[in-house]
Amino acid sequence: MTNYLIPLPPNEMAPYGAEGHWPFGYVDKVRFHELDPLQHVNNKVYFSWFETIRIRYLDALGLYGTDPTLPRIVVKSVSSDFRREMVLGEDYLVTARTASFRSTSFRMEYAVWAGDLRTTGDAVVVFLEPDGSAKRALPDDLKQRFVEVDGATSN
Amino acid sequence: MTNYLIPLPPNEMAPYGAEGHWPFGYVDKVRFHELDPLQHVNNKVYFSWFETIRIRYLDALGLYGTDPTLPRIVVKSVSSDFRREMVLGEDYLVTARTASFRSTSFRMEYAVWAGDLRTTGDAVVVFLEPDGSAKRALPDDLKQRFVEVDGATSN
Amino acid sequence: MTNYLIPLPPNEMAPYGAEGHWPFGYVDKVRFHELDPLQHVNNKVYFSWFETIRIRYLDALGLYGTDPTLPRIVVKSVSSDFRREMVLGEDYLVTARTASFRSTSFRMEYAVWAGDLRTTGDAVVVFLEPDGSAKRALPDDLKQRFVEVDGATSN
Amino acid sequence: MTNYLIPLPPNEMAPYGAEGHWPFGYVDKVRFHELDPLQHVNNKVYFSWFETIRIRYLDALGLYGTDPTLPRIVVKSVSSDFRREMVLGEDYLVTARTASFRSTSFRMEYAVWAGDLRTTGDAVVVFLEPDGSAKRALPDDLKQRFVEVDGATSN
Repeated sequence: MTNYLIPLPPNEMAPYGAEGHWPFGYVDKVRFHELDPLQHVNNKVYFSWFETIRIRYLDALGLYGTDPTLPRIVVKSVSSDFRREMVLGEDYLVTARTASFRSTSFRMEYAVWAGDLRTTGDAVVVFLEPDGSAKRALPDDLKQRFVEVDGATSN
Repeated sequence: MTNYLIPLPPNEMAPYGAEGHWPFGYVDKVRFHELDPLQHVNNKVYFSWFETIRIRYLDALGLYGTDPTLPRIVVKSVSSDFRREMVLGEDYLVTARTASFRSTSFRMEYAVWAGDLRTTGDAVVVFLEPDGSAKRALPDDLKQRFVEVDGATSN
Repeated sequence: MTNYLIPLPPNEMAPYGAEGHWPFGYVDKVRFHELDPLQHVNNKVYFSWFETIRIRYLDALGLYGTDPTLPRIVVKSVSSDFRREMVLGEDYLVTARTASFRSTSFRMEYAVWAGDLRTTGDAVVVFLEPDGSAKRALPDDLKQRFVEVDGATSN
Repeated sequence: MTNYLIPLPPNEMAPYGAEGHWPFGYVDKVRFHELDPLQHVNNKVYFSWFETIRIRYLDALGLYGTDPTLPRIVVKSVSSDFRREMVLGEDYLVTARTASFRSTSFRMEYAVWAGDLRTTGDAVVVFLEPDGSAKRALPDDLKQRFVEVDGATSN
């Protein structure tokens, strides 16, 4: 009933000014509770948006849930770079992709578009055994998908 | 490009199980950052949703903005009653209406629907002079709209 | 090393203007992320403060933790009344008490003090069986403590 | 009445396991609302803590307030690296320093300590003219303080 968080085809990304290869996206609108005393979106809020799309992305890959055989998925580090502020009521698109991977981790990139590019970010995501005792290798079919769908590189 | 926060006609409210007269609504989906350690939507989050629709409602009434002649609008009190918990990914509808008004204040009611009624709430909203020095009377056309569109009663 | 959330004796409450019988309190200072675009503490934030002291209060009563025999504790409803706004850097005291109880629930009251009374609130807290299947009776020693320490009444 | 956000001398930092030169710090305790469904402090929360100490630090430098001659202070980018999770009720110390500066910006570093090092982070902070029209040079006495108190380097 809503297109919230449904992956968007490229022609739906264009109106937001999105450029480049982004296989996953969702659209939303800036809300009052995301503003700080400077009347713009507070910088912490972008990490909420990146988390929202990351969880949805992991879910689409079958990696989010209560199945006890799933890896424990941990965010190791995040960063964000703020290009231009956002204000109340702006319509925006958040996009995500996996840019690169190693044997037990991968790095996602995020971007926020609202006519032009407003914010970029990334997160390094690590696979652990369900009990957290050791790192777990990314399965081959996941790495293949990262390459084929997201255009990721092994490094 | 998204129907987020656009007032919904009754036939779009029905799929969420909404009942009664609600002239204003928006649809959304539960996100990870709205969950608490009990794996459900934290009770504070409903007040964010009520705030989101209240600001949008005030904006639709021409009452939100930087025009210096607008009243200062203050929330005097809020409450919420939690019927049934919500979990990650649920689609929901938030509805709002003004239920009653006095000379310088009005009481809004809110509800959250996701197949059935999950949460209700209200807020008492007060009009002040822009400098906060005194209460300001609600204009007659606003009271008329509350009666005609929202079905509000004077009390 | 910090007196954060340690219950305060009455003589430590006086500097904040607290009046009445409040057996439990903690002190803190308003932070930037608690402000909204109106440059004051957003009304949702008071519910965070009430939640913080409620969890600490439940923990002090031995009711918070992972022991599987503990009741599942559910907040049924909350409300808050805003007397006077708070701004960045203000030192404040949050106080809590159980005001009344029934067979399977109790009502807590909260207040925020910063020289004078800024905000009041309450929450109705319900005991369920650990699996959520039915309500659970409050134990007699808990009701006795509510009466003797908090001054609560049965209703 | 509380030592919240009061800069701490080195001997008060030692109990938290803090190492290195950190001229500014505050202590606090993990709250329920900072936890996510994984029962630990959500990664976004560390940016709240870094924001809290950054605002307090700017205030201590006379750079936070409503004086119209003050620069507009903008966060250009942030990052954080998560070493070990934190759970409800843990006492912690947040520390901050300016590590380096350029002509119109400086880079702050942050750390969270709770017996051992839990999280590190940084932020690049830019000075603009009050109307946002151009970058503003850092004054010489500020750069001198960064060098002498924080041990910062020019780069």
